[in-house]
Amino acid sequence: MRHSRITTILTAVTLTLLTLPPLAFAQTKPNYDDLAKAQASSNATQGIRATPAKSFKVPTNEVSPEIQGLIAGPYPPHFNADPKSAAEWKELIDRRAKLAIATLPAMKEKFKVTVEPTTIAGVKAFIVTPKTIPAQNKGRLLVHVHGGGYVFGPGEAALPEAILMAGIGGYKVISVDYRMPPDFPYPAAMDDAMAVWKEVVKKHNPRKMAIFGTSTGGAMTLAMVLRAKSEKLPLPAAIAPGTPWSDIANIGDTYETNEWVDNVLVTWDGWLGRAAKLYANGKDLKDPQLSPIYGDFSKFPPTILTSGTRDLFLSNTVRTHRKLRRAGVVADLNVYEGQSHAQYSFNMNAPETTEAFTDIAKFFDRYLAK
Amino acid sequence: MRHSRITTILTAVTLTLLTLPPLAFAQTKPNYDDLAKAQASSNATQGIRATPAKSFKVPTNEVSPEIQGLIAGPYPPHFNADPKSAAEWKELIDRRAKLAIATLPAMKEKFKVTVEPTTIAGVKAFIVTPKTIPAQNKGRLLVHVHGGGYVFGPGEAALPEAILMAGIGGYKVISVDYRMPPDFPYPAAMDDAMAVWKEVVKKHNPRKMAIFGTSTGGAMTLAMVLRAKSEKLPLPAAIAPGTPWSDIANIGDTYETNEWVDNVLVTWDGWLGRAAKLYANGKDLKDPQLSPIYGDFSKFPPTILTSGTRDLFLSNTVRTHRKLRRAGVVADLNVYEGQSHAQYSFNMNAPETTEAFTDIAKFFDRYLAK
Repeated sequence: MRHSRITTILTAVTLTLLTLPPLAFAQTKPNYDDLAKAQASSNATQGIRATPAKSFKVPTNEVSPEIQGLIAGPYPPHFNADPKSAAEWKELIDRRAKLAIATLPAMKEKFKVTVEPTTIAGVKAFIVTPKTIPAQNKGRLLVHVHGGGYVFGPGEAALPEAILMAGIGGYKVISVDYRMPPDFPYPAAMDDAMAVWKEVVKKHNPRKMAIFGTSTGGAMTLAMVLRAKSEKLPLPAAIAPGTPWSDIANIGDTYETNEWVDNVLVTWDGWLGRAAKLYANGKDLKDPQLSPIYGDFSKFPPTILTSGTRDLFLSNTVRTHRKLRRAGVVADLNVYEGQSHAQYSFNMNAPETTEAFTDIAKFFDRYLAK
Repeated sequence: MRHSRITTILTAVTLTLLTLPPLAFAQTKPNYDDLAKAQASSNATQGIRATPAKSFKVPTNEVSPEIQGLIAGPYPPHFNADPKSAAEWKELIDRRAKLAIATLPAMKEKFKVTVEPTTIAGVKAFIVTPKTIPAQNKGRLLVHVHGGGYVFGPGEAALPEAILMAGIGGYKVISVDYRMPPDFPYPAAMDDAMAVWKEVVKKHNPRKMAIFGTSTGGAMTLAMVLRAKSEKLPLPAAIAPGTPWSDIANIGDTYETNEWVDNVLVTWDGWLGRAAKLYANGKDLKDPQLSPIYGDFSKFPPTILTSGTRDLFLSNTVRTHRKLRRAGVVADLNVYEGQSHAQYSFNMNAPETTEAFTDIAKFFDRYLAK
């Protein structure tokens, strides 16, 4: 990365010098053909793709005003957070958790769901129940693993996505409040999620169950299926990993092409990569339990994936999609115009939010037994 | 676009100045946190997304060596071609056609297909027939509309994709050699394609037929269904618009985010936008027959779409996908890691080529009557 950053900056300098006529610093209008020539010259050899500094409009076609508002937003203040101690991590985690928890009353009200804390196999969890459950979903049950880079979303802060799925899809949802760093690095989160899975499949028919989650929750969804396979546990009938963090090792094309474009995660080199290392706790980032893209996807249940064109994890999503199809798995893909990471789940009033969770609900309806 | 280019260049200058310590021109190692600060400052207000000059590695995971070779390639020499006369257009078109035609003998040999020129309803076309047609495809027939920005791909230069589909999918294909600018602007191409469609559905059951094409061919596929609907003609049983040029008006997020990233089309402002205007010949670029994204997709047949993460037309593809799903249409989407525009069809030996056309063939098999 350091080498590529040097190249990046040198490219900036080179392009700036190449593309600017002498009076450019006095706002001389740049010439498209000169830029094109400079670009052609920077991209004349095999292997290198160099792009100039750019700026983008907010897309408006096939994008609702609510999502346009999210796309237009500045980078989040914490994108480059670099906590130096467990206490600093906890302060940041707590600050962000309060923001998430503050959204819950309006969400519960809008989607008419109730939330009950519980403990399953010794693991904290929440049962999210919509007021009305359609007949075909009465015997069905979803397990939710929340996102947040393995650090964010403790306790009730895990609930927004669970409420969207329960409310929009009309499903009963168990949301796992798994243990996280700084106190509990890998494999605590996965151990907790698997303990819940093992317990619930004792009482519920797994053919009537699905697992879902976004970002880290998407990666955990995939890792849970890998682990269930290797432990010979029943598999869910379908899964919905939303823009899954399937490769936490900063490998994949859009980690580079969408760096500084995505206004949710922004860059792997900020809090995100630091959280990856904190979670991994010295373990290889390419271990399939940490980066499930390196696992064997054969015999996976039908899978629906969701991403956006500006998503830092678009490659995580499409690599997973391709690898699933190559393994012969039914795999569906939705990519939203202009969206950065997981923005389809950030505004409960956006039509794209209803659409994304309705698509997932329909997919589950197709593959879960009644 | 001009304004955004000024911003782009000024951002380059600003970032360069902000991020470089005094000795930077002597290759001082740039500081990530300084870059992050400069970026946060450039992205601190609602609406603007500004990115620094960057450079990208060739992705290697979930990407074959053959496709890695394509991703690594320099911009094509003609990306910024600006022909000033019909003669200059024809010279460029002819030069590129020769390159395409030169690939045909090896393709015919590899895929064991025969090609016969013909005329259907007064329109030139080719019949591409694989040596072996699987039993379920014996009564089926595909109509192919080639790509090339409404200018490239005359005569046999139209055939590479038709051969891939016939050979890999095991289908008989009619490839329409529609008229094109500079001599024949809109609506000649669509008139020709529709004349062929009208003629073939007289003799063939449209439930056993599909239409497919990439890029401009993808847009024409969509526009053909729109026009068949409005003319109350039979619709195909399925369609496969590959990375369709569904909006020729330079509207859509990845026209900006993937500008200079895509090494096939590179930018709308080069030959591509010039071809759009040449084809439109003064007509509104947002007319649904020119930009089918503005049409009504209700009652469309099942549709499979294909794109890549670096594709300038990724937004054209996903906007089409979303609009189809919003209209209640069965719509499948494949997005390939790292690929620029249509690279899944450029190397007949790449596993992704086999994969993309096999996925389309399977999709057709699911929805076409036997």
